[in-house]
Amino acid sequence: MGEKPLILITNDDGVRAPGIRALIQYCRPFGRLVVVAPDRPQSGTAHAVTIAHPLRLELIVKEEAYEEYSCTGTPADCVKLAFKIVMKRRPDFLFSGINHGNNASINILYSGTMAAVLEGAMAGVPSVGFSLDSYSQHADFEAAGKFITTIVASVVDKGLPVGVCLNVNIPAVPEGEIRGIRVCRQAEGTWQEDFDEREDPHGREYYWMKGDFVKIEHTEDTDQWAMENNYLAVVPAQFDFTAYKAMETLKDRF
Amino acid sequence: MGEKPLILITNDDGVRAPGIRALIQYCRPFGRLVVVAPDRPQSGTAHAVTIAHPLRLELIVKEEAYEEYSCTGTPADCVKLAFKIVMKRRPDFLFSGINHGNNASINILYSGTMAAVLEGAMAGVPSVGFSLDSYSQHADFEAAGKFITTIVASVVDKGLPVGVCLNVNIPAVPEGEIRGIRVCRQAEGTWQEDFDEREDPHGREYYWMKGDFVKIEHTEDTDQWAMENNYLAVVPAQFDFTAYKAMETLKDRF
Repeated sequence: MGEKPLILITNDDGVRAPGIRALIQYCRPFGRLVVVAPDRPQSGTAHAVTIAHPLRLELIVKEEAYEEYSCTGTPADCVKLAFKIVMKRRPDFLFSGINHGNNASINILYSGTMAAVLEGAMAGVPSVGFSLDSYSQHADFEAAGKFITTIVASVVDKGLPVGVCLNVNIPAVPEGEIRGIRVCRQAEGTWQEDFDEREDPHGREYYWMKGDFVKIEHTEDTDQWAMENNYLAVVPAQFDFTAYKAMETLKDRF
Repeated sequence: MGEKPLILITNDDGVRAPGIRALIQYCRPFGRLVVVAPDRPQSGTAHAVTIAHPLRLELIVKEEAYEEYSCTGTPADCVKLAFKIVMKRRPDFLFSGINHGNNASINILYSGTMAAVLEGAMAGVPSVGFSLDSYSQHADFEAAGKFITTIVASVVDKGLPVGVCLNVNIPAVPEGEIRGIRVCRQAEGTWQEDFDEREDPHGREYYWMKGDFVKIEHTEDTDQWAMENNYLAVVPAQFDFTAYKAMETLKDRF
């Protein structure tokens, strides 16, 4: 029997978040784990990388088949540092999350959790991001444990198609209400942004972003539908943004 | 004759960068311009949004058919603030750049310039990002002026397909050597990251990201090929990341 696979775990809510603690427990039976995660919450950092200033790594735990580091950078920085400095190789698998909040639909574009996953996919590593549809401090990361384990086991066993990673969104409902796993496409949706307009103590205006996610589509093959109907929504995602159909339309335009 | 179109201009190199100054000049004949751009360079911020702290806007110029603001946020923040606070509506068109550096291939994932463009596309605004393949302080943003004007004029005249924006990458060669405009797909490529490992004045280790873009593909239908062969590379890009082919493969897997 060969060595157990090497698995990188990361997230965007920071190394102390309950979501990553749950994911670590689900992944531990499947291999040697290296955790490299941001030292503080990095929600909304998307695929940002840190080039204008230096990064630091801090070793937190080192045990048999388990190491944990915190990093001052973004999720994408964590993945790059993990590959190059911590592991000195590409891992066999990458799992990111469990994110505190919905990354279905266009939320994937803003997500640090999924940026780490796309970063893994670009390096040829089978990579999966998990997100729970709850922003509550008391979110229950255990209810879907059985299904998360099923997905991790399947990816460790069979890998993923080249250039494809998974965006898994988990409904925040009790264990008995989860109906299973569905492979879906990314729903159309939008953010209805708004800004609080306020005045600082010195009389200067400032703006604080707020907003609501607005679903545009309601069809059954979308991630947003699946999640709202108590399925784990699995979207195979890619990092080729080309709109191939539009290539034809625009071919002779310029 | 109706009112001239309302055009939003932004970038990720900051409102004072030579690239946005050139873009403003190219776009000015086509409509009423509102410039909302970061107050400092934001390269590599990708699609990051600022939710954990407030944003500020500063009016710099207000003239007939021309307003200019600097913003403390990311390019995506600039677009959201422009729509909601500055314009109080969606503009008719959005142009971003001209970026100082290559945003072809997978560089689109890290690009703040293109995040602003994807943000526009998600809101249904015909949006185009321009990037010049040069990091030089003395980059020549004039050489391709004629071709940039052609693209802006075409988009203002005919719009773009729904859900599609354009990622335009411009070769950094003298005017006479530019061979034209090609519609392409995003090339496969990768970043060969590396980190400088250093010690700070207090004896603590730190890491500074560096790296080289490595082209994987060399075929003639890619943006990277077009740019290296002195064409402006136009990639129609979308914000639906679903890997549709993989949906079929993975359908019954879990």
